[in-house]
Amino acid sequence: MSDGFLDLHYGDSPLVLPNAWDVPSALAFVKAGFAAVGTTSFGVVANHGRPDGFRFSQQHNLELASALSSLECFVSIDIEDGYADDPEAVADYVARLDVAGVNIEDSSFGALISPDVAAAKVAAVKSRCPEIFVNARVDTYWLRQDAELRPTLDRARRYVDAGADGIFVPGAIGETTLRQLCTQIDRPVNVLASPGVSVRRLAGWGVRRVSTGSLPYRAAMHAATQAAVAVRDGGPIPPSAGYDDMQSQLRAYDRG
Amino acid sequence: MSDGFLDLHYGDSPLVLPNAWDVPSALAFVKAGFAAVGTTSFGVVANHGRPDGFRFSQQHNLELASALSSLECFVSIDIEDGYADDPEAVADYVARLDVAGVNIEDSSFGALISPDVAAAKVAAVKSRCPEIFVNARVDTYWLRQDAELRPTLDRARRYVDAGADGIFVPGAIGETTLRQLCTQIDRPVNVLASPGVSVRRLAGWGVRRVSTGSLPYRAAMHAATQAAVAVRDGGPIPPSAGYDDMQSQLRAYDRG
Repeated sequence: MSDGFLDLHYGDSPLVLPNAWDVPSALAFVKAGFAAVGTTSFGVVANHGRPDGFRFSQQHNLELASALSSLECFVSIDIEDGYADDPEAVADYVARLDVAGVNIEDSSFGALISPDVAAAKVAAVKSRCPEIFVNARVDTYWLRQDAELRPTLDRARRYVDAGADGIFVPGAIGETTLRQLCTQIDRPVNVLASPGVSVRRLAGWGVRRVSTGSLPYRAAMHAATQAAVAVRDGGPIPPSAGYDDMQSQLRAYDRG
Repeated sequence: MSDGFLDLHYGDSPLVLPNAWDVPSALAFVKAGFAAVGTTSFGVVANHGRPDGFRFSQQHNLELASALSSLECFVSIDIEDGYADDPEAVADYVARLDVAGVNIEDSSFGALISPDVAAAKVAAVKSRCPEIFVNARVDTYWLRQDAELRPTLDRARRYVDAGADGIFVPGAIGETTLRQLCTQIDRPVNVLASPGVSVRRLAGWGVRRVSTGSLPYRAAMHAATQAAVAVRDGGPIPPSAGYDDMQSQLRAYDRG
């Protein structure tokens, strides 16, 4: 276990994890002061022209994990469902990643999988890579399948028993639900940032980790379009990163 | 020559070309109504963790040109200096691209090259691929080397004589300079968008094509960082593209 990364989940305020999809986005997050960077499988596959949720990020994440390993930050990779139904195959994959953590979700191709299989994946990864922070994702709320407290807690407990270091419940919102989840799950609970709910408020409800998910990637795509349209039609040009700044960061990164 | 793309340079208003770096950015530009999409070699190499200007986009642009070939738009690829000093090698490369146009610049590794060599590259490409719109870039103003009207016009004329379909003078700004360039160059003149100067004004000075350059890419990187920082520190979350919208576009693209 990378103690430093684990410790970030038990600090005074929640760990806020921005989700990168390539080297420049990760470099920008590090420059903005983030000590740890996650990835967005949506952004990673979109960047390669593929849709999300079909295990298309498998090869790209190997390359991305390697590319991000020299950065001055902890890196946690979103590996979808581990790209396999066989827990040992998932462990084989994770063993190839030089990272502080991974997210593994308990759904495949848009449907919840058996919690037995999901727990077996967590156990296999922790057995093979005890040093990696395994953030087990419960997709009940995200997929609106069994989106109730009881099945969510049942799944979360299975994954904690299997060795998960944290539990991620994307799509879970609202004080009542989040307080219940955070009280009853004996590991740091991770949620997605949601508009109008501050990290401080989430902290008060017991949340220990907040991910941006694909929001920065989708904000990027919006701004790119907005910039092009503003040039064409007139109107305010959105602010942009400096060419020289980015170029000098990339030159320093490229020199290793 | 793809007549449709050529014609766009002689329409009522200048052709505004947004510069994409991957499939989703190009899809977004097409959705926003752009009939033609360029690429930014800076964005393309940055996206792969490399700095600009070192011929690192060679392989990536082959893949990107192929990936964009199914889109409902004309595609023009920024091939830096053609990745070779030998004009025939440049023509070999361009012959592998299924595109409406290319940009070729008359500098390598940050320094102007001989206009003889640059003109020979243009001639070799037009001889091998007469159907491709060759936009010859004069880098005098961009690199601030011989950044005067006379050497710029001398170079531009060499490239027009070699068969260039358009002349791109990034870094050239101001009414006097642009009017002179547009009057004295017997091909559509392309400039970079610059803040505070509308396309309509550029049109009045004779400009026929306006590129965004890396602005949309750099606006994207700024917005991504801004979104992550807003989640962490509070403050307004920038607008973002919708997950479902992007995902359904990518699914449609992926099905071909």
